[in-house]
Amino acid sequence: MKADAIKIVGTGLIGTSLGLSLARHGITAGLSDQSKANLRLAVEYGAGEESSLEPDLIVVCVPPDNTADVVAQELAKHPRAIVTDTASVKSEIQTRVRELAGAEATRYIGSHPMAGREKGGPGSARADLFFARPWVITPNEESPSSAVDLVKDLALKIGALPIVMTASEHDRAVALVSHLPQLVASLLAARLVDGKDSELNLTGQGLRDTSRIAASDPTLWLQILSQNAASVSPLISQLRADLEVIEKAFSNLSESGSLAKIHSLLERGNAGIARIPGKHGGQLVNYQQLTIVIDDSPGALAALLTFIGEIGVNIEDLKLEHSPGAPIGLVEIQVDPDSAQQLSKQLIDNGWRIV
Amino acid sequence: MKADAIKIVGTGLIGTSLGLSLARHGITAGLSDQSKANLRLAVEYGAGEESSLEPDLIVVCVPPDNTADVVAQELAKHPRAIVTDTASVKSEIQTRVRELAGAEATRYIGSHPMAGREKGGPGSARADLFFARPWVITPNEESPSSAVDLVKDLALKIGALPIVMTASEHDRAVALVSHLPQLVASLLAARLVDGKDSELNLTGQGLRDTSRIAASDPTLWLQILSQNAASVSPLISQLRADLEVIEKAFSNLSESGSLAKIHSLLERGNAGIARIPGKHGGQLVNYQQLTIVIDDSPGALAALLTFIGEIGVNIEDLKLEHSPGAPIGLVEIQVDPDSAQQLSKQLIDNGWRIV
Repeated sequence: MKADAIKIVGTGLIGTSLGLSLARHGITAGLSDQSKANLRLAVEYGAGEESSLEPDLIVVCVPPDNTADVVAQELAKHPRAIVTDTASVKSEIQTRVRELAGAEATRYIGSHPMAGREKGGPGSARADLFFARPWVITPNEESPSSAVDLVKDLALKIGALPIVMTASEHDRAVALVSHLPQLVASLLAARLVDGKDSELNLTGQGLRDTSRIAASDPTLWLQILSQNAASVSPLISQLRADLEVIEKAFSNLSESGSLAKIHSLLERGNAGIARIPGKHGGQLVNYQQLTIVIDDSPGALAALLTFIGEIGVNIEDLKLEHSPGAPIGLVEIQVDPDSAQQLSKQLIDNGWRIV
Repeated sequence: MKADAIKIVGTGLIGTSLGLSLARHGITAGLSDQSKANLRLAVEYGAGEESSLEPDLIVVCVPPDNTADVVAQELAKHPRAIVTDTASVKSEIQTRVRELAGAEATRYIGSHPMAGREKGGPGSARADLFFARPWVITPNEESPSSAVDLVKDLALKIGALPIVMTASEHDRAVALVSHLPQLVASLLAARLVDGKDSELNLTGQGLRDTSRIAASDPTLWLQILSQNAASVSPLISQLRADLEVIEKAFSNLSESGSLAKIHSLLERGNAGIARIPGKHGGQLVNYQQLTIVIDDSPGALAALLTFIGEIGVNIEDLKLEHSPGAPIGLVEIQVDPDSAQQLSKQLIDNGWRIV
């Protein structure tokens, strides 16, 4: 079952990106937005048009706190259409839609494309925002399989990876892999407010990475976190319990068992990292890292990568590490361990500074 | 004042890297290590030689818990030499060296090159490990300025950036920018141990970045953290206090003021991120980000960067974002805002998929 006419409600970052993705695949979505300015901008970008065509599938792309109301309105307005949404939390919206729409709620299938950016609005939209990202679909027992297929087909159409789970499974999962990291990054970054400049000048990549997502939008995140309090709350309590154990250990380090408690946390951290799957969704592969020094000038990185490409070695991951106060960069690449030694030799033989 | 003869005690990652750096600058360091195997490996790598030359400057590169003892031994063995070290914590070592070496301790100048890797041992050494990184030097009131200059000169010789502060200033700084992030990453990663595979499969870049350093060596970090408990402990308590506030807010979300508490934390996180200095040690510059889609194949990234280099645009930062389960990559580059629009147009005109 495929949707012939798709309507997107809400032309912010997600709605406009979805419209652009569909346009790339030859589908003109019907767009609507409470803000005439946003709507016009999205149309001008090519995300779709203001259409009066009766839709088969409606995708509600509005902030989490407005999602249930808008879903219910669309169910009422289009009595034959399937309605889905894109909010980052699912259980509370599902419950609320049932309350508002009654029996009509069976035409609602929740979903969550796992993609986003720090910046919002139609101007930040990207046609490939959902490409190769998980698109979680959260039907319930009453959902007709044809309706689920319609949402799956939408995800596949734009290159996303549909994953079906229940709303509560989804909410527990994102509490762990998205909402808790957000709070932890914010807790850490909040400590920097009172730091001295001379202290912050020693910041390295570790702190930068650990705190990066603390730059996200507080208003949006407050809606996400408060709708998922039931799943986030126990994780926070578990983290607080671990933290209290090491707080006591640090405040009385000479007491027997204190070091063992800190060591145990560090070891559990190692074990947790080992649980994160590698790229391509598969098992974690131990790539070999090579670090090459380049000038911080146009073309320097390109010359290096051209050379590696000519040898035929695939770069599995790449990080450009800038050196504070110096005009050079360190390029860290991850390559297949079987290729690493030969590549390393060829780089050195051709005058690259490998470190 | 410059050191004519440098001795490195301990040929692990740091000592061997230092020897390699000095060798690049035409200086052959004298090496020593309790482990004959490590020492021989470091000599074979070209980090220096087993020398009986009387040193002017001794650099102790052993684990934090052994540093003070080894420093005291070297002070006794070489009564004219200046002795420094490379441990990540400074106050406790300084105090202990005074206890062990008495008046001779004025010849000890603590230091800490802010560089490291997840892996240890001479086999992981890199000649440019310290290049363009801060090298903190922690003299006290009794330290002769000529001795401080000797350590500064060592740092400058190998391209590091000497920064002078007191031992306690250093320890407070690294507690905030290095030790607290390590613990926070471990606390977060520890939560993953109990996660389900289906949950961890939804892991995105946010969790990866926030938890990355939790993969570090627990044995080394236990030594670092336990020597800096005095500076780390209050930060942990402040973090725990913040955490308790939001724990209560999440467990009783309907209570008045709960949302304001969560929002306040998210906003303080924003403010903390704004405190982190940008690359080149300067103020944070707002670069413009462009995201380009490439094939995950040898040469694809090189072709892109060659094109950008030919236009003459300098890439300020680059991240290769892999798409789970799909053979493409998203290249996120940061460029000068003045160049961004023109670059974007030229990329599109030449068939690049910019998103």
